[in-house]
Amino acid sequence: MWVHLQREIENLKKDLLALGAIVEENVQKAVKSFEERDSDLASSIIDSDYEVDQREVEIEEECLKILALYQPVAKDMRFIVSILKINNDLERIGDLAVNIAERAVFLTIRPAADIHLDFRTMAKETIDMVKKSLDSFVNMDPGLAKEVCEADDVIDAKKIKIRTMVEEAIKKEPVRTEDFLQYMSVARNLERIADHATNIAEDVIYMVKGNIVRHRMG
Amino acid sequence: MWVHLQREIENLKKDLLALGAIVEENVQKAVKSFEERDSDLASSIIDSDYEVDQREVEIEEECLKILALYQPVAKDMRFIVSILKINNDLERIGDLAVNIAERAVFLTIRPAADIHLDFRTMAKETIDMVKKSLDSFVNMDPGLAKEVCEADDVIDAKKIKIRTMVEEAIKKEPVRTEDFLQYMSVARNLERIADHATNIAEDVIYMVKGNIVRHRMG
Repeated sequence: MWVHLQREIENLKKDLLALGAIVEENVQKAVKSFEERDSDLASSIIDSDYEVDQREVEIEEECLKILALYQPVAKDMRFIVSILKINNDLERIGDLAVNIAERAVFLTIRPAADIHLDFRTMAKETIDMVKKSLDSFVNMDPGLAKEVCEADDVIDAKKIKIRTMVEEAIKKEPVRTEDFLQYMSVARNLERIADHATNIAEDVIYMVKGNIVRHRMG
Repeated sequence: MWVHLQREIENLKKDLLALGAIVEENVQKAVKSFEERDSDLASSIIDSDYEVDQREVEIEEECLKILALYQPVAKDMRFIVSILKINNDLERIGDLAVNIAERAVFLTIRPAADIHLDFRTMAKETIDMVKKSLDSFVNMDPGLAKEVCEADDVIDAKKIKIRTMVEEAIKKEPVRTEDFLQYMSVARNLERIADHATNIAEDVIYMVKGNIVRHRMG
């Protein structure tokens, strides 16, 4: 039984990483569609979100099946419960990618605005956090998890900087308030994605060290 | 053993409802502090968030303990896993109440703005959704859960209305952009709280009907 359980857990890890890869790609493409005013790309992300939802449901069912069938204890049980939580975080990251894609669709029918923000770098750093948080989980690496928590401050600072730039743009050209607010929305969605990665990383540190580092930002 | 397990589950329900009552009160007080420009009240909510965090950790530990000790199957196991997820939603609702309180602190040091938005009603309706979602869970009442899902559309519409009003206010007085954006932030945080209540309700419908109504909104 123990060997079977370990095999099931390995499969779950793979499924979780596969879902992670999809949502990471969706975030990247959503930001690309926004920056390049590509409504086809944006629509394709909105349309493909059902796959993320479907996979989330499947992973949850799989976790419940394994809990029922193998009744794992201690470390294994906690690991599976963590997968349930991370699964949820990934699905919500998928939703946030959709939010960004919706902003892209909104802007493509509007004339280009005179504002230049480097979303691509912010997106890259955010996606890196998601990747690293998942790696820290499957390898139970608290050092890597700590890097994710630290990177969160960088993303927060970038969001604040973008907010200031958007506010300045609005003051200069208030007639385009609705358009400029879409830019702020993209930054905010990226920040929320980074928060989910941080949740995952904090859970890893908690699992490894047995301390409550979750909510340390409180 | 079965009787003990049922007793543990009853205790978990009580703990979850107690946490629900705290975050509902925090949301209500946060909006009050914003509307009445009461920075003391706002600070008290920010300061008390550690209690929400603490309770979340305790409930999670309790769920893991029960899973390990009683190895519940089928319905009971799914119920406990749902408590883990809802526990997470409630903690995040607590964070969103803190966000609103932070907006209140920001605005109390600024001159009053000429914008009148009915946050109190929106907050009341949002808190009602949280209450009903928890009631639908502890009583396994899919009818009540459905009401919560329907109410979510009302909250979304209110947020859109507030966004439009804020955009108009900015266009009239762009120099106060930063201040007006705090109002939009309150509406957005309330909408996110309603989303968490909807997550809970969709989980209840899923559990009772065995169908995937989660993600029905796409």
